Amino acid sequence: MKNYRIDNLQYCNWSEEIFRINNEAKLDAIHVTVAYHENFDEVKKNFKIWDKYFKDFKSLIFKGKTFKDIEKAKEDKKTAIFFGFQNCSPIEDNINLVEKVYDLGARFMQLTYNNQSLLATGCYEKNDSGVTRMGKEVIKEMNRLGLVVDMSHSAEKSTFDAIEISTKPIAITHANPSFWFGAKRNKSNELLRTLAASKGMLGLSLYPHHLKDRSNCTLNSFCEMTAKTAELMGVQHIGIGSDLCIGHPNSVVEWMRNGKWTKTKDFGEGSSSNPNFPEQPTWFKDARGFKNLEEGLKKVGFQETEVNDILGNNWYNFYRGINN
Amino acid sequence: MKNYRIDNLQYCNWSEEIFRINNEAKLDAIHVTVAYHENFDEVKKNFKIWDKYFKDFKSLIFKGKTFKDIEKAKEDKKTAIFFGFQNCSPIEDNINLVEKVYDLGARFMQLTYNNQSLLATGCYEKNDSGVTRMGKEVIKEMNRLGLVVDMSHSAEKSTFDAIEISTKPIAITHANPSFWFGAKRNKSNELLRTLAASKGMLGLSLYPHHLKDRSNCTLNSFCEMTAKTAELMGVQHIGIGSDLCIGHPNSVVEWMRNGKWTKTKDFGEGSSSNPNFPEQPTWFKDARGFKNLEEGLKKVGFQETEVNDILGNNWYNFYRGINN
Repeated sequence: MKNYRIDNLQYCNWSEEIFRINNEAKLDAIHVTVAYHENFDEVKKNFKIWDKYFKDFKSLIFKGKTFKDIEKAKEDKKTAIFFGFQNCSPIEDNINLVEKVYDLGARFMQLTYNNQSLLATGCYEKNDSGVTRMGKEVIKEMNRLGLVVDMSHSAEKSTFDAIEISTKPIAITHANPSFWFGAKRNKSNELLRTLAASKGMLGLSLYPHHLKDRSNCTLNSFCEMTAKTAELMGVQHIGIGSDLCIGHPNSVVEWMRNGKWTKTKDFGEGSSSNPNFPEQPTWFKDARGFKNLEEGLKKVGFQETEVNDILGNNWYNFYRGINN
Repeated sequence: MKNYRIDNLQYCNWSEEIFRINNEAKLDAIHVTVAYHENFDEVKKNFKIWDKYFKDFKSLIFKGKTFKDIEKAKEDKKTAIFFGFQNCSPIEDNINLVEKVYDLGARFMQLTYNNQSLLATGCYEKNDSGVTRMGKEVIKEMNRLGLVVDMSHSAEKSTFDAIEISTKPIAITHANPSFWFGAKRNKSNELLRTLAASKGMLGLSLYPHHLKDRSNCTLNSFCEMTAKTAELMGVQHIGIGSDLCIGHPNSVVEWMRNGKWTKTKDFGEGSSSNPNFPEQPTWFKDARGFKNLEEGLKKVGFQETEVNDILGNNWYNFYRGINN
C-alpha cells in the first residue's frame, strides 16, 4: 500500500496560498468544514463557493467523494477536498435534508457544535441527555447514506450513545485526550477506548486551546501524548485532524462561538481577556508542520509504518470503510 | 370585576362555524396555536391567514395583544385571539427572531414540543438535560418582551429550570395533573406546586389523551380532579386550556406528531391501533362545554366566584401581569 497523508479537519480562510501549502505538505486529502451555523440554503452557497475554487485551482484541488479520490489525489499530486459540517444546522429540523446534504458532498456531520442541538448535547452544556429521538433517526439515515457521525464537539454521554446507536464506526475528527490536557473539548480515556473498540477514529487536534500549554505546547509533548493515546486506543485508530483555522480575521472565531444563539457574548474556549484566534505552535504553523510531526513521532519511538498510519493511512482505511 | 371566559389553548380547523361556537360559549379570549413545526417564514404565512380571518369575520373575532383586548372583547361581544407556538421552531436558531415573532403577535411560546429542542427537553425524550445555554438566553429575551414561556409539552427538569430561570411567571397552558391520569404530558404534584408558588398558571386540558378514561372521561371525574388540583395549587392558579383540535382531518395529528424529524412513523399519545384524533367527551364536544364545566364545578363544591376564576378570571389576571 502507498502511504497517504490526510488532515481530517481544516477550516482555513481558503486561498490559492493555502491550497499550495497543503500541496507542499503532500496532503492527499483534507476534510474541510463548510458549516458551523449555516442552514440548508446557506450551506448550499458555501458549496457553490467551493465549486468555484475547484474550477479556479484545478491543478491543486478537486472534490473528494470516496476513498478512491484519495488514491487519485496521490497519483495526480493534488489534494482531495472532503466536506463536513461542525453542526447539524444544515439539516435544520428536516430528516429529508440528510440525503440532500450528502448529495451536495457532505461526508462528515457533527451532531452538535458545543451547544445542545436537535440531535444530541454539545460539550459546553451543563447536562447531557444523550442522543435525542430525532438524533436516533438521523444517525440511521446517515448510516444508510455513508455520512460519518462526528462527535468532536459533543458531550460525553451523547458520544457514547452515538457509538452505540451508529451501525457504522464514528469519528472524533479533531480533539485530544483529556489525560493530557483537560479542555472541555478533549475526551476521556474510557470514551477513547470505546471509540477504538467500535473501530472509530480520533483525529488529534493542533488547535492551541486543545494543547497542553496551548500555543507554547512542544512538539515532543504532543508526540508523547500521541504515544500514550496509541497505547490506549491502538495506533490504527489515531489520525490527525489539525483544526487549522489560519488566515481568518478574529470576527470569524466570534461568529463560530456565538452564531445567532445569544445576545450575551460567549467566549467559548477563549476568555474575555483572550478572545481571539490563538497563535499556532511554532512547529505547526500550517500543514507543512506534518513534516515536524513525522520527525517528532519517530523520536518518541514510533516505527515508520506507524508514523505513516497516524499521518494518513488510518484515515484512508476509515474512508475505505464508509460505504461498506 | 367582570367575569371573563377564556380558553387558553385551541387548535381547531378554523372556520366561521368555530368562531361562532366560541362566541356562543361566551369566550372573551382564546389562545390559538399558530405553530407546531413551522419555521419563521412558514409562521409568517400562518399569521397572514389569520389577518384574513380577522377581516372576514370581524364581527366575531379580533387580534389580541394585551389584557385590554380581553376587556374590549367582552364589551363588544367578540373573541380576542391571542397567538402562541407549541414549539420554538419559528425562531429557528436565531435569538433575534424572538422579537420578530413577538411583533407578529406571538404571546406564548413552548420551549419544546415533545422532542428535544434547541432550548429544552420535550416530555417524550428519554433523558431531560433541562434548559440549554440557548434556552437561558431566549427566556431572558422572552421576559424582556412579554412573550410567555409555556412548558405544556416539556419534560420535568426542563420545566423546573424554566420556572427558576424566568423572571416572569410561566404557564403550562394545556395539561392535567398526573395524580389523576399518568399520561406523559401530565404533570407531577411537585411541579404543579412549584408552578403555583412562582405565580404560574395551569390550563386544564380537555384533550382525551390527557383525561382519565380518555374519551369516556366523565364530567364529574374531571371536576373532582379540578378540586384536588385547587387544593394542591390554590384555585387562583388554575384555568382552562382545552386543547380543542376539532374539525381537522387525521393527517393533521400525524403531522403534529411527525413533523419532519423522523422517517419512522411516530404515534405520539396514540398508538398504531389508535392513530387518529380521539373523540371528545360528550360533555365537551366544543367550547360550549364551558357551560357543563360551570355546572360540574359547582356540583363538586366550588363557589360561584371560584368557578368564574377557573373559567377565565385567573387567565385574565395572568394576562394582566405579562407586561408588568
